[in-house]
Parts: sequence; C-alpha cells; structure tokens
Amino acid sequence: MRLLVVGSVAFDAVRTPRGSVERMVGGSATYFSVAASYFTQVRVVGVVGDDFEDEHHQVFLERGICTEGLERVPGKTFFWSGEYSADLNDRRTLATELNVFASFQPKLPLHYRRTPYLFLGNIDPELQSLVQRQMEAPQLVAGDTMNFWIEGKRDKLEETLRNIGVLIINDSEARLLSGEHNLIKAARAIRAMGPQMLVIKRGDNGATLFREGEIFSVPALPLEDVFDPTGAGDSFAGGFMGYLASHSIEGNGPDPGVLRRAVIYGSVMGSFAVEHFGLERLRRLSRPQIETRYKEFQILTRFD
Amino acid sequence: MRLLVVGSVAFDAVRTPRGSVERMVGGSATYFSVAASYFTQVRVVGVVGDDFEDEHHQVFLERGICTEGLERVPGKTFFWSGEYSADLNDRRTLATELNVFASFQPKLPLHYRRTPYLFLGNIDPELQSLVQRQMEAPQLVAGDTMNFWIEGKRDKLEETLRNIGVLIINDSEARLLSGEHNLIKAARAIRAMGPQMLVIKRGDNGATLFREGEIFSVPALPLEDVFDPTGAGDSFAGGFMGYLASHSIEGNGPDPGVLRRAVIYGSVMGSFAVEHFGLERLRRLSRPQIETRYKEFQILTRFD
Repeated sequence: MRLLVVGSVAFDAVRTPRGSVERMVGGSATYFSVAASYFTQVRVVGVVGDDFEDEHHQVFLERGICTEGLERVPGKTFFWSGEYSADLNDRRTLATELNVFASFQPKLPLHYRRTPYLFLGNIDPELQSLVQRQMEAPQLVAGDTMNFWIEGKRDKLEETLRNIGVLIINDSEARLLSGEHNLIKAARAIRAMGPQMLVIKRGDNGATLFREGEIFSVPALPLEDVFDPTGAGDSFAGGFMGYLASHSIEGNGPDPGVLRRAVIYGSVMGSFAVEHFGLERLRRLSRPQIETRYKEFQILTRFD
Repeated sequence: MRLLVVGSVAFDAVRTPRGSVERMVGGSATYFSVAASYFTQVRVVGVVGDDFEDEHHQVFLERGICTEGLERVPGKTFFWSGEYSADLNDRRTLATELNVFASFQPKLPLHYRRTPYLFLGNIDPELQSLVQRQMEAPQLVAGDTMNFWIEGKRDKLEETLRNIGVLIINDSEARLLSGEHNLIKAARAIRAMGPQMLVIKRGDNGATLFREGEIFSVPALPLEDVFDPTGAGDSFAGGFMGYLASHSIEGNGPDPGVLRRAVIYGSVMGSFAVEHFGLERLRRLSRPQIETRYKEFQILTRFD
C-alpha cells in the first residue's frame, strides 16, 4: 500500500570524525522516503526553495518517489549544519536556517488524501495536525517528534498524539515526553496519550517495540565504520513503515510477525544510512543487499 | 563440570532510589558463585574476617557452594559502600575498606587445582596470575577486570590476559583496555591480547559476545522495577560460566549454540540480581523460574 510522508527536505552540512560535507540533500522526509522506497510507493509532502534544482530532485525521482506534494517556492531551502563528537555520540548544531520552511503550510494534493499509510515526520505538531485533518481515514498513522516540540508545544503535540497509532522516537525523547526514566513506565505513559504502539530507537543500542502485552527488542548491528549518523532515525522509520505498508491487508492492522520484521527492516535501513555521508549509501542499495543485512540481524541475534 | 571462582567476598552497604541497606553479604565471588550454583558445582576461593559468621556463610552453604577455599582470618571482612543516582546509571563509591583483603594471597586447596572451569573475578591481576599458576590444565579460564587495574597495573593485567580464554567486562572497560571506541575494533584489539572470546556487558543495553568470525548480541530484558544494580555483572558472569561448565564435554570447547545460550543465561541471572537488594532475589530462585525467564528472552527477541 502507498505511504505518505510529511517532513523536512533540506540541505545539510555535516562534520564527522571521518570527514565533512558542505552541502548535500537531507531532511527527515528525504531519509524516510528513500528508505521506504525499497518497500513500497512513497509520496512526499514538504517544501523546497528555488535553489533545489533538478539534480537534487533526482534523490526522489531515481527511487520512484512521487514529489507532487513537494512544493517549490521562491527563496532558499531549509539548511542545517551540525558537527559530531569523536565518538559520534554527541551532535552539536552549528546552524539552522529555516528559510522557506518557516512559512510551510502542508497542502495535500487531492489524490494524496486517501493514502492508507501516513508518517508525520518531526515537524511542528500544529503542522502534523494540519496534515492529519486533510487525510481521509488512513489505515495507520505513525509519527515522530523531538525535545523541542515536547518542551515548547506540549499541548499541540498531545493533540497530535491522540490520533497517532505508532510513535517512533528515541529514548531521551520518550523519557522527556513521559517524565519516566524507566522505559516500561515511559511506554505505558505514552501509550495512554494515544499511540497503541511505541517504537523507541536507541541508536547503537538497538530498538524496542512496545504494544499491548508485548515488548520486542533488537540490538543494533555492530558496525566497524560509522561515517555519519545523520538521518539514521528517519531511515529506521522509513524501513519500518515501508515494510509495514507493503505487508498489510486492507482493513487489518499488521500482524505481530510483520511488526517484528518491520522493526528489523527499520534497523537494517538505519544501519545502511550511517555507513556513508548523507544519503550516499541509502540511495544506492539493492533489495538483495537489504535481504542480506536482514539475515545478518538473524545471525546476530538467534539462539534456541 | 566443576567451576572455581576467585574474587572478593565482602560486606556491602548500598543506597539506591528504592531504599538502603546498611550491611549485607556481597562481593564479586559471592554474586558469581550464587548465580553459577543453579547450573553446576561451585568452589569459591577468597578471604573473610572473623566478623563473617555462620549466618553469612549460609549464603554459600544453602546453595551447595564449597567454601573450603574461603579463608577466615583475624580482622574485618572487606567492606564496600556505594550510592546510586536516581536513574541508577551512576554509582558513587562512599567507602572501600580492604581490611583482610589487603593481604589476601589466594591458596588453592590441593584438590581444587584440577577444577576444569575457572573464573578470575575482578581482583589485582597479580593475584589472578597467582591463581592461574596453581591450576593444573583448566579446560576454560574466564576473567573480569576493571578500570582501576587497566590503568594501574597494565603490565600485570596483560600477563594475566595471555592465559585467559574468555574476558567478561563492560563496554567502558573494553574501550579503556583497547583504546578503541568502536566495539568491533575494541574486541579485535582485546582478542589479540590473548582471550579467544570477549563478552561485553552493557547493562540495560544487553550483552555482546565476540569470537573468531562471530558476533552475538542480546538486548537486556526490560524491567519495570530495578532495586539495586550491585552484583549484576558478576551474576551475569556466574550464569554464563555456570551454564558453560554444565554443558561442556571434556576435551572440547563449548559449541556455538551452547555459547549463545550461556550469554542468555548470564543475562537471565543479571536480570534477577537487580530485582532486589543484594543477593535477596538471586539466592531464592528455582530452576523453573530461571527457565521461565530464559523463555522471556526468547519472546523478547524472536523474529523470523
């Protein structure tokens, strides 16, 4: 089934211990949609400036992603610049220039409104709500958020959360949102806010899925060379939602086996994302490479 | 097969957010041997003072642990006191009184010397070597260490490591010992120092086994109530070594399936250890409870 994502499309500059890149296509919707495109047909809703040229659109077009919902307006594209610490565990933002994103008001093309799977990328919860209101009976809505919205727009975020089925955030966000350090307690508190399911991303400590009566955990695949962690979480969400969208039957929620495999495919796409700068690795994958890495997760974790 | 452990036997005082205990039996050899006692026959080598009374010995005796190697000398037993942070992630040592441990020189009873499985608890590497030299052709030697010895007695520690088959340490110790932040690189560097196998304990992020051509990772079991993390790492090592010792055939190293299951049984015993103060939970288990928790790890991690 088709999958719609709304989020940021940006130019990024990153410095990591392995090198630096001055300008490359990034943004949460970009990583998400490229990762998801290996599993299902993806539609992207966002905004870019007139400096976003044909070559930059290629990131979407070469992956068959529909960009009809990607508005192009006069001005400069959202720009983010950041620097990672030597151990890659800390990230310092050097610059955030919202540019055309500052006045972004997502408007869904009419034929997008019945898309069955929706992912609300990490943007202002008011914009997330605006998208929710334009959708017609989506089958599954997932979303992301961050500390900035949890602290700054709590009420609006809670409104968005009431209509989200799966929240996909990291552990520090889950702790901040719930006020609970213990992740079982945090998950219970967050699920009481709306989402039936919570996926907690834990970086190089793996990921955990919480839903009624079930917890599923997977460790991260140990990687010897991590180039650039940018976009890993969005790529995880793209793999997770892409796999779910491609394995669901209309009218039914995903079955437990499919959900667990979706967490693995999310982890697979996150692991590819960090192996090169920006989208370099993620955009040039093949389905057999993805399946091979899925098997690596099986080999990493299996016991009887 | 029988399993010998050398390490500290102590009185501990701990404060955690869930409460405090002024004096209870602790020490690395104690946690290790109680955890291992559910799997195999255990012999403990250590030293206690004359304040270590019959009731304290019960911790060992009720679990069928042989204490012939537990010397009792005039003076006070090793005392450690510590306090955990609100999120249990940080521990501050309030007092370390070595007492009779300061002049400890491990002497193995003659009939201990042919014990096939040996665990060198986290003590001075010179004492670890002294024990190694008294053993006669052990089948498998495992060991632990800590930052204090890595920084303070590097040469002696490297000598010990040359004759260790499995090193069981936590992630920060692995990074300090190897000088590598990346755990794959750290494991390679440490395995070049001697140990064929490395188990990295990662607390509430699980555990990872590294050996030639293989990495096995298991997440931690999410627990809602953690009372006291003291001894979790030693309990992990006890479950790991106890299971290995009970499932090995003379002359053969453990097979890959047994090794992976040993990591799970280690995780099982570590998860029990933290559920109450000190040894309270660990000493009152049954084999069915252990098997039930093993199945919980299967349910937590399985996917197809």
